[in-house]
Amino acid sequence: MKSYVQQFLPVIESELSQVIDLAIGPDLDELHTMLTYHMGWEGEGAGPEATGKRVRPILVLLTNAAAGGNWEEALPASAAVELVHNFSLIHDDIEDNSPLRRGRPTIWKKWGVAQAINTGDAMFTLAHLALQRLNTSCSEAAVVEASRILQNTCLKLTQGQHLDIAYEARGDLNLEAYWPMVNGKTAALLAACTELGALVAKAPQAQCNSYRDFGFSLGLAFQVQDDLLGIWGDSALTGKSAESDLITGKKSLPVLYGLSLNGDFAKRWAQGKITSAEVPALAAQLEEEGARTYTQDTTNQLTENALNALDDAGPQGEAGDALHSLAMRLLRRQS
Amino acid sequence: MKSYVQQFLPVIESELSQVIDLAIGPDLDELHTMLTYHMGWEGEGAGPEATGKRVRPILVLLTNAAAGGNWEEALPASAAVELVHNFSLIHDDIEDNSPLRRGRPTIWKKWGVAQAINTGDAMFTLAHLALQRLNTSCSEAAVVEASRILQNTCLKLTQGQHLDIAYEARGDLNLEAYWPMVNGKTAALLAACTELGALVAKAPQAQCNSYRDFGFSLGLAFQVQDDLLGIWGDSALTGKSAESDLITGKKSLPVLYGLSLNGDFAKRWAQGKITSAEVPALAAQLEEEGARTYTQDTTNQLTENALNALDDAGPQGEAGDALHSLAMRLLRRQS
Repeated sequence: MKSYVQQFLPVIESELSQVIDLAIGPDLDELHTMLTYHMGWEGEGAGPEATGKRVRPILVLLTNAAAGGNWEEALPASAAVELVHNFSLIHDDIEDNSPLRRGRPTIWKKWGVAQAINTGDAMFTLAHLALQRLNTSCSEAAVVEASRILQNTCLKLTQGQHLDIAYEARGDLNLEAYWPMVNGKTAALLAACTELGALVAKAPQAQCNSYRDFGFSLGLAFQVQDDLLGIWGDSALTGKSAESDLITGKKSLPVLYGLSLNGDFAKRWAQGKITSAEVPALAAQLEEEGARTYTQDTTNQLTENALNALDDAGPQGEAGDALHSLAMRLLRRQS
Repeated sequence: MKSYVQQFLPVIESELSQVIDLAIGPDLDELHTMLTYHMGWEGEGAGPEATGKRVRPILVLLTNAAAGGNWEEALPASAAVELVHNFSLIHDDIEDNSPLRRGRPTIWKKWGVAQAINTGDAMFTLAHLALQRLNTSCSEAAVVEASRILQNTCLKLTQGQHLDIAYEARGDLNLEAYWPMVNGKTAALLAACTELGALVAKAPQAQCNSYRDFGFSLGLAFQVQDDLLGIWGDSALTGKSAESDLITGKKSLPVLYGLSLNGDFAKRWAQGKITSAEVPALAAQLEEEGARTYTQDTTNQLTENALNALDDAGPQGEAGDALHSLAMRLLRRQS
C-alpha cells in the first residue's frame, strides 16, 4: 500500500517546484529562496522533515485514481492545494507570532514581517497559477469549476482564520463556536482535495459530492482527534506538557465543552494562564466532567460519516484501498 | 465627457458590494465590517474621499466600451482589479507600517496586524471570486484567459513589492533597479485593466495587445510623473515638505538617477535621513545634476508610447474619447 503512494512523492515535488519557479525573475533570487525555504527544499534543516507529509496533494491524487482518473492529470490540482496550505501557514505563523515551523525558523523570523506577508501573497498567487496548468488535460469548463472550488475554499479558510483570531480574545465561547472555525481552518481544504481529485477524473456529480463529503468529514474527524490528543495524548500529558492545549489556551473541542458546562474546569480556565504543573489534574478534571467521552464520541461519529461517504463514492482498485488506509492512518485507527 | 464616466460609478460600487457580501456568514460581522471599512463604505470618514477614485475599474469599463463591448458585461473584471488593488493596499500598509490611508486609520491600526493580514487575504480571494462572475456573459475559455491574466498580474505585483521592500535597505541601487519594481507595483495592474476590458469585449488579439500596451505605458508614465511631483511638485517643495520623497527616502526615478551619478546629491543621500529644512536646496541640487530633465523626458516618452498604443488600439465612440481624456487627466497634460 505504502509503495502505491510512494510513487506520487517525487512527482508532487517536481510539480510544486515547476510552479514555484514561475516566481523567478531579475533581482528576485531572495523571493525564490524564501519560497523554496518554506517548502523545505533549501536552507538550514531542508529535507523530508521540513517539507511536511504532503497529505493534501496525496489525497488529491489518490481520490483521482480511485475515481478512475489518470492521476498524473491531477498533479496541477495537487500542487494548488499544497500551495494554498503553505500560503496559509506562512501567514498563520505571522498572525500567531510563531518563531518555529517544523523545527525551523519561520519566514517572518528569518526575513521580517513585511517580506513574509508578501511571500505568502506570492505563494497564494502561485497556488492559483498552479491550477491553470489543468488546461492541458481538462476542458475549460472543468478548469473554471476547479478554480471556483479552490477560491470558495480560500474564502472559507480566511473566514475560519478570522474566527480563530477573534476567539482568542473571547471568554464567552461555547460549543457552537467550534464548528464554523474548524470547517474553515481544516475541513474545507480537505474537502477541496477530494472534490478536485474527483472532478479532474471526470466523475459524475453525485460521486464528486460523495468524495467532497468524505474529505470534509475526514478533516473534521482528524481535527477533533487532534484536539483529543492535544489534552490526553502522551506528549500532552507527560514530559512535554508544554505541548498541552491547556497551556497554549487553544479553543479546542474538549475545552469548549468544558466551558459550556460552566463547572470547575470553566472556573479555573477563567482565572487565566494554566501552568504546566496544573496540567495533569486539570486534564483529569475535564475528563471527569465528560469532555473526553464527548470528544471521543464526536470523532467516532465523524469518522463513521467519513467512511460512509467514502463507501458511497465507491473508490476503485489499488488507489481505492490506499485511500481507505490513508483515512484510517489519519484517524489513528487500527481497523 | 465626465457624465459618460459618471454613469459607471454607482454600478461599480454595487458590483463591488455584491462581491464583498460573499464573505458574510455566521459570527463574521467583524470581518465584513473590516472589508467595508477599507472599501470606504462604513465607519469613521466613510464616503467618496475614503473610497478612492476607482480609476482601475473605470479603465476596465471604458476600454471595454471603446473596444465595442457592452460595458456592463465587464463589471466582474472591473470589480476584480479594484479588489486586487485594495488587497495590496491592506498588506502594503502593514508592510510599510503606515497608520493612515486616505486620511483614515488603516485596518491594522484599528484591528491589529493579525486580523489585517487575514482580511487582506480575504480581499484577495474575493478578487478572484469577482472574476468568476464573468461566466454569465463570457465563454469558459474567456474566463480561463481572464483568470490567467489576473493571476500573472498578481504575481508581478508581489514581485514588485518584494523589490520595493528589499530596496529600502540597499544603498547600492542604480537606475536599472527602478523598472522591474515599477512594472510590478504600478504598470502591471493598469495593463491588466485594459487587457481585461478588451478581452471581455471579444476584441481581436492584436487589439487586446495594443490596449494592454496602452495600460502598461500609462501606468509607467503615471508613476514617473508622480515621482517628479514627489520632489518638485508644489506640496513637496512648499509648506508640506514632509510630503517630499526626499524625506520619506523613496527610491524614485530622480533619486535613482542622482545616485547613479555619484555626485553631490548621492553623497548627501548616503549620509542618512534628510531633514525638511534641507529639502529645497537638495531638490535644486538634484535638478542641477539633470535629474528633473531626465525624469521629464522619461515621462514624455512613456506618455507618447501610451498614446501611440491607444491609437493602435483604435478606441471607438464616446467611450474612446473618454478613455483618451482619462489618460490625459492621469498624466496631467492639457492636450
